[in-house]
Amino acid sequence: MLETRAATTADAALITAHRRAMFAAMGRTQDSILDAMSRNFEPWAARMIAQGKYAGWITLDDGRAVASAGLLVLDWPPHPLDPDCEHRGYLLNVFTDPEHRRRGLARVLVDICLAEAHRRGIRVVTLHTSDAGRQLYEGFGFRSTSEMLFVEPVEG
Amino acid sequence: MLETRAATTADAALITAHRRAMFAAMGRTQDSILDAMSRNFEPWAARMIAQGKYAGWITLDDGRAVASAGLLVLDWPPHPLDPDCEHRGYLLNVFTDPEHRRRGLARVLVDICLAEAHRRGIRVVTLHTSDAGRQLYEGFGFRSTSEMLFVEPVEG
Repeated sequence: MLETRAATTADAALITAHRRAMFAAMGRTQDSILDAMSRNFEPWAARMIAQGKYAGWITLDDGRAVASAGLLVLDWPPHPLDPDCEHRGYLLNVFTDPEHRRRGLARVLVDICLAEAHRRGIRVVTLHTSDAGRQLYEGFGFRSTSEMLFVEPVEG
Repeated sequence: MLETRAATTADAALITAHRRAMFAAMGRTQDSILDAMSRNFEPWAARMIAQGKYAGWITLDDGRAVASAGLLVLDWPPHPLDPDCEHRGYLLNVFTDPEHRRRGLARVLVDICLAEAHRRGIRVVTLHTSDAGRQLYEGFGFRSTSEMLFVEPVEG
């Protein structure tokens, strides 16, 4: 039986494991980096959930967690797209266990996250997609942006 | 004489005027939206500057403000690109008065913003570019991302 419930601080380890698996599936496979990320992400997630800034959902199949997703509330400057709002939603950690894919679990989770953004009065939601996820998000009305990213080179 | 100085809370109105002019130059010309954004952005900017989360710089030409830019410090989940960091920098409000363009003022401001990110231990900086700005940012090493954005439709 499928069931979706809200995440609590007790789910920080599970969410972290899903985040790690998500990045590994996208080709970020260097263990030392994933270890560092996981070590730092888990307490961060617990804190953000406790502060109400990270709203997460977990999909259970006969009690076993098989998918999850989160909506992070970012402080954001009032912008023409939503001029009365000081926040933007950020959809992250959308993950489904490989053996439970193609059942529409991610779609349900994204729908819940967008409803949560609506409930909080947040009209703009962003995410970073993998190639595999693009079509799903386009179906919800997500469109590509002009975002650019800079990473400071490691000295060496 | 050209001079660049750090912004203070007293510059919130100037930064807001530059932000408005920047969006107008990018084709967002609906006054009611720009009015609402400006009304909300100005106190937001003053608060963020006071909290040390918005680091702004103003370029003066013989004492007159002719360009400005800002670096906003976002709370961000630890990520493989910078696994020990809970922040990401966001470069915004990069604006030069039309009659002072093509003098390299934006380049100097972006350089200062990236140095500020480095000083704060932030290795990843993002922005949203206009078509006109893309080449400048590419020169600094910024690359396009897979970001997607959803805006809740206005009921009608």
